[in-house]
Amino acid sequence: MDVAPLSASRVGSWDDEADVVVVGLGCAGASAVLGACEAGAEVIGLERSSAGGGTSAQSGGVIYLGGGTPVQRACGFEDSAEDMRRFLVAACGPDADEAKIALYSEGSVDHFHWLADQGVRWHDTFYAEPVYEVLTDDGLMFSGGEEAWPFCEIARPAPRGHYPRTEGRSGVLLMKVLLEAVDRSPARVRTDTVAERLVVADDGRVVGLVARRFGDEVRVRARGGVILAGGGFVANDRMLTQHAPWLVDDACYKVGTDTDDGRAIRMAQALGAAVRHMDAAEVSNPAPPNVLMPSLLVNSQGQRFINEDVYHGRSGQVALFRQDKQVYLVLDEEIHEANPSWLKITWAAETLEELESDMGLPAGSLRATVELYNRHAEAGEDPLFHKNRRWLKPLRPPFGAVDLRKGLFGVFTLGGLHTGVDGAVLDLDGEAIPGLYAAGRTASGIPAWGYVSGISLGEGTFFGRAAGAAAAGTALGA
Amino acid sequence: MDVAPLSASRVGSWDDEADVVVVGLGCAGASAVLGACEAGAEVIGLERSSAGGGTSAQSGGVIYLGGGTPVQRACGFEDSAEDMRRFLVAACGPDADEAKIALYSEGSVDHFHWLADQGVRWHDTFYAEPVYEVLTDDGLMFSGGEEAWPFCEIARPAPRGHYPRTEGRSGVLLMKVLLEAVDRSPARVRTDTVAERLVVADDGRVVGLVARRFGDEVRVRARGGVILAGGGFVANDRMLTQHAPWLVDDACYKVGTDTDDGRAIRMAQALGAAVRHMDAAEVSNPAPPNVLMPSLLVNSQGQRFINEDVYHGRSGQVALFRQDKQVYLVLDEEIHEANPSWLKITWAAETLEELESDMGLPAGSLRATVELYNRHAEAGEDPLFHKNRRWLKPLRPPFGAVDLRKGLFGVFTLGGLHTGVDGAVLDLDGEAIPGLYAAGRTASGIPAWGYVSGISLGEGTFFGRAAGAAAAGTALGA
Repeated sequence: MDVAPLSASRVGSWDDEADVVVVGLGCAGASAVLGACEAGAEVIGLERSSAGGGTSAQSGGVIYLGGGTPVQRACGFEDSAEDMRRFLVAACGPDADEAKIALYSEGSVDHFHWLADQGVRWHDTFYAEPVYEVLTDDGLMFSGGEEAWPFCEIARPAPRGHYPRTEGRSGVLLMKVLLEAVDRSPARVRTDTVAERLVVADDGRVVGLVARRFGDEVRVRARGGVILAGGGFVANDRMLTQHAPWLVDDACYKVGTDTDDGRAIRMAQALGAAVRHMDAAEVSNPAPPNVLMPSLLVNSQGQRFINEDVYHGRSGQVALFRQDKQVYLVLDEEIHEANPSWLKITWAAETLEELESDMGLPAGSLRATVELYNRHAEAGEDPLFHKNRRWLKPLRPPFGAVDLRKGLFGVFTLGGLHTGVDGAVLDLDGEAIPGLYAAGRTASGIPAWGYVSGISLGEGTFFGRAAGAAAAGTALGA
Repeated sequence: MDVAPLSASRVGSWDDEADVVVVGLGCAGASAVLGACEAGAEVIGLERSSAGGGTSAQSGGVIYLGGGTPVQRACGFEDSAEDMRRFLVAACGPDADEAKIALYSEGSVDHFHWLADQGVRWHDTFYAEPVYEVLTDDGLMFSGGEEAWPFCEIARPAPRGHYPRTEGRSGVLLMKVLLEAVDRSPARVRTDTVAERLVVADDGRVVGLVARRFGDEVRVRARGGVILAGGGFVANDRMLTQHAPWLVDDACYKVGTDTDDGRAIRMAQALGAAVRHMDAAEVSNPAPPNVLMPSLLVNSQGQRFINEDVYHGRSGQVALFRQDKQVYLVLDEEIHEANPSWLKITWAAETLEELESDMGLPAGSLRATVELYNRHAEAGEDPLFHKNRRWLKPLRPPFGAVDLRKGLFGVFTLGGLHTGVDGAVLDLDGEAIPGLYAAGRTASGIPAWGYVSGISLGEGTFFGRAAGAAAAGTALGA
């Protein structure tokens, strides 16, 4: 097994050593480096690519923060840690990590300031329209469907998606800022270096790792701990098939880099680390939110199956995991013209009978759905799925529909190593494995099944910092 | 970690030894003992309870066999290994284990005779009505929804559920027969002995295990291999929460014994074994099949979501995993009177408006569903879900509905250790761990996500035998 742990007794000599060794320099690893340095530790950061950034740098850059950040307040939104907590528990469940969510919600404003201290900046402006990602330089948006049922009844909605200001994609900017902070820190960075196996002492403590750099083996000792922040496993088809076969599909595109191959997860599993929720994944609905919300999302029986104004990653998950991706968007000309987008209409028809026939849906099925929707929408209600009144409008001819079955659903994995709130990797009994930590998508974090945009960068940086501090504390005897 | 493997170098002396050591004496373990004995190995069987039987003895006893067994032929059914194979790949997917299915389908008639050689007997009679379990002494029934869409179009349907003849429950009888065969074999059985940790040599080979018997540690050497057949993990709430949180619910009852605590799975994971499909589970629909099939199964939007004549474990899975168990059965007086059962009507009404109101469903939702169903049923078709014509009949007043939300869904886990066709446990790279085998629900077997009644006892006995033979072969240098 190429990830089998190596016994420390077989390591003749170390090539390098530090208090804390961090694997991967995406947002979680960079923050772990910074957190460990702040705690006074000597740190080595390993990155298998030629530069840090990872999947974080490819992302939209949105960071989920709340509880009353300066940007939220400047934009006129009230928020509390308790509302944020209640929302995340509901939106990221079942089995969302409540201990992590509580810490994250309580510490969110502080984390905002920490990110600002590293050099991240936001405009104090709110973007109100539903979109995947803010493409203007506005700083704040709703990024998790907080206003949609049932979440609007569980917690007071507040926008918590914070977009670092930039003219390009915010993910690139965020990682530029964090990696510049790493450069300013005393940490030593080794690029082109892939961690391969953990080194374990006789008492079970992780004391280092074996890496490879351009074919050469490099043995790196970690006096305090190794922090695994090597991404998820969306690029590993065998692991996907074993845990989440629904994701192995031509209609899914993998959000991530080739290095999201699950190696960091497997290195820890090989010594008895527990994994959680390996079947879970974020799944973006291919329909643009501004068109999706006023339209009807229907399945191959012509039935609606969710309130269309819910977070687009939630309707995407439900479409993939519960409807086998056999879904369509049904709208009318008025919606189409009022909501410009790249979306192309697949079928257009004057009557619902004609439309459902063209779509290959069972006779009468779509008509029954639209008639019921219209009847309720005229009364300003949606008793089936509780879509917000803002989006309720009876559909009128001419009608149109979009075939989403071959639309590209963007997916990445949410499952990973079971960790404590300090990032400690837990074994199959729930006990911490001494000297081993994980953060980012290598770990099973706040999202168990559900997801919200911005939580990966948010918890990656937050719990990356925490893991860095914890590993440093071990090394320094804190 | 209480399942951490023990290094062989730390085992001073062994208390017992054999070629093959089998953990657990349910159907898979008993068959592993027999398979290893047939191959000429010296065998020890460990059982943590005071007698073998396990969950197999609590089961209905149905064994999934086909391809033209003597019982199938005597009852007038044609079947082929190829039809059986095609059906199982479709019904047990996605990611059903095609290599295991091919072997199992090809070897099914032979396995029938092997079971007969052990003393299992069946009546050559077919039970035609849809039920959970045959309570008569008939020997054959449809147990996997082979006649239902889409499976009827994928493979020629044949009944493959074989019920050992008995006046009581067949599971008890099956285990009585298999354990008597074990008693007749030269194998030594140690009851009240719980396997705790595997013992591993320096080269990674599993060479034995540490068990506990009434507080005393017992070290058992396995010259050829250890076979883990200790059941699934439905009795372990932590594992359920980590992998399948939907099953942690008061409306689920756990099918299994307290010893289905996942310990055997964890013992192997602790040394780097891979697991598969840990989120998957069999979920029995609480509605009796004879009433379910002609009725409508609807969700909390009053929508149908599956053809009601599909295997009751499939509609149960979909109700649990895809509809959050918010499901109801809608029928009429004629169905109720024609299909005697224990099922109590929760609501009765003269009109659909009244019924949907009493049920708390959205106004017009159930009426739209029933009107569409009736319109199609009158034409003898169900274009939404393709229920067989046999069950299609328009619903007429007076109507009734059954609240299944609090009905008990019987669940057990399907995920487990990744094994090869010879039962070898595979590591995280897909390579066999030398000296380690698994069978029964400890392994991820033929069912990945889907399930059919009888496959647990079928593949448990079939691949248990295979693992016994393989471990014996290793010991004997075959």
